[in-house]
Amino acid sequence: MAQNIYDDPGFFAGYGQLPRQLRGLVGAPEWPAIRAMLPDVANKRAVDLGCGFGWAARWMREQGASAVLGLDLSQNMISRARSMTDDPGISYEIADLETLELPQASFDLAYSALAFHYVEDFGRLARMLHRALTPNGLLVFTIEHPIYMAAAHPRWLHDDDGRKTWPVNRYFIEGERRTDWYVKGVLKYHRTIGTTLTSLISAGFALRHVEEFCPTPEQIAAVPELAEELERPMMLLVSAQR
Amino acid sequence: MAQNIYDDPGFFAGYGQLPRQLRGLVGAPEWPAIRAMLPDVANKRAVDLGCGFGWAARWMREQGASAVLGLDLSQNMISRARSMTDDPGISYEIADLETLELPQASFDLAYSALAFHYVEDFGRLARMLHRALTPNGLLVFTIEHPIYMAAAHPRWLHDDDGRKTWPVNRYFIEGERRTDWYVKGVLKYHRTIGTTLTSLISAGFALRHVEEFCPTPEQIAAVPELAEELERPMMLLVSAQR
Repeated sequence: MAQNIYDDPGFFAGYGQLPRQLRGLVGAPEWPAIRAMLPDVANKRAVDLGCGFGWAARWMREQGASAVLGLDLSQNMISRARSMTDDPGISYEIADLETLELPQASFDLAYSALAFHYVEDFGRLARMLHRALTPNGLLVFTIEHPIYMAAAHPRWLHDDDGRKTWPVNRYFIEGERRTDWYVKGVLKYHRTIGTTLTSLISAGFALRHVEEFCPTPEQIAAVPELAEELERPMMLLVSAQR
Repeated sequence: MAQNIYDDPGFFAGYGQLPRQLRGLVGAPEWPAIRAMLPDVANKRAVDLGCGFGWAARWMREQGASAVLGLDLSQNMISRARSMTDDPGISYEIADLETLELPQASFDLAYSALAFHYVEDFGRLARMLHRALTPNGLLVFTIEHPIYMAAAHPRWLHDDDGRKTWPVNRYFIEGERRTDWYVKGVLKYHRTIGTTLTSLISAGFALRHVEEFCPTPEQIAAVPELAEELERPMMLLVSAQR
């Protein structure tokens, strides 16, 4: 089973205070870019893999989705999502993305935000999602960028000019990465960009859009600390079509 | 017109001594990965954009290509390629990739090694190549990896463990990069991975394979200094189909 940090009380106490949890989608600076990649969800069936508190599931229903299934490994997350949702068109279930099987051709949209980098076997997941989508169905997801994850000690350095500089090493050594994030030793899986994208192509997907989160000038004006995200790619955003 | 460092005598004297120029394709450690991405070229018409001394053009003819057009900005390169080639099925021409126009649907394969990062307008080039390929024709190319190119001062650092570490900054500030490589201030154009891949998709291509050059254990055993290429992505290899 995948590591479940979200049911660690110490983790959940910190994580639950993040703007993206407290304020929902508007608290995530990458949301406008993701939203631009999403199809019109009206009358579509969607699954959200790693649904957290259910913000995206509720947003999809507001946009007219016929049904949304929210999946998360964490009992804490699912409980919170259920308590925040009053909509018979949304269901939440505990699921482990390492072993999840969804019914064939049952969803028009598979969505996932910042969850797949916790999954060890991405190829299996991609093939399963390809089967679970309807023809022309879309997979839209974000992950921590491989460049953000690769280094043994990922933290800002400064170059000779004093410019904030992100370190890259161990890029081609795929597999486990452990970082401290509210709790010690959070386990993630590093894959190169090549592996990530070619896994999708091999599963049968056609890549429709590949983007890396970059804050807009307006976002930087509102939240000046976002300026450092011009220096390094932090998140990879992908749209792929069955 | 694109910058033409290759006709600078100082540059050419150094560059012409690189293993990939002296020894041809076997002198380029990424060649096995590129070769695996290339289609069977028998009876195909191919164009090589940035053909250098013509090694790939001659290889394609040995593999049965019906005709190969080698293009390069540099008179030095084209002269050397012609002097090394005795084959009526290969022609070499001087061409600037910023403005090049090829006849519609005239090639089954467009190939380019380490040239497109000198091109300022990659979107224009991608659209032109899409038109120049026959239906299902392939574009296979390599560029310096955006992570390799991004930083203001690209050179090895060391992290706290003494591990070789590659610096990343200015990633989302696309455009000119100048580095010293045999001559001062060689001009290249940095684009993000997202821009590179989405430009191809927008031009109508289907991405078939995305890979980043990683030396094999055998290559590292033979050339130990290649081990540092496990730490950082140096080249991006892409196959895209019309």
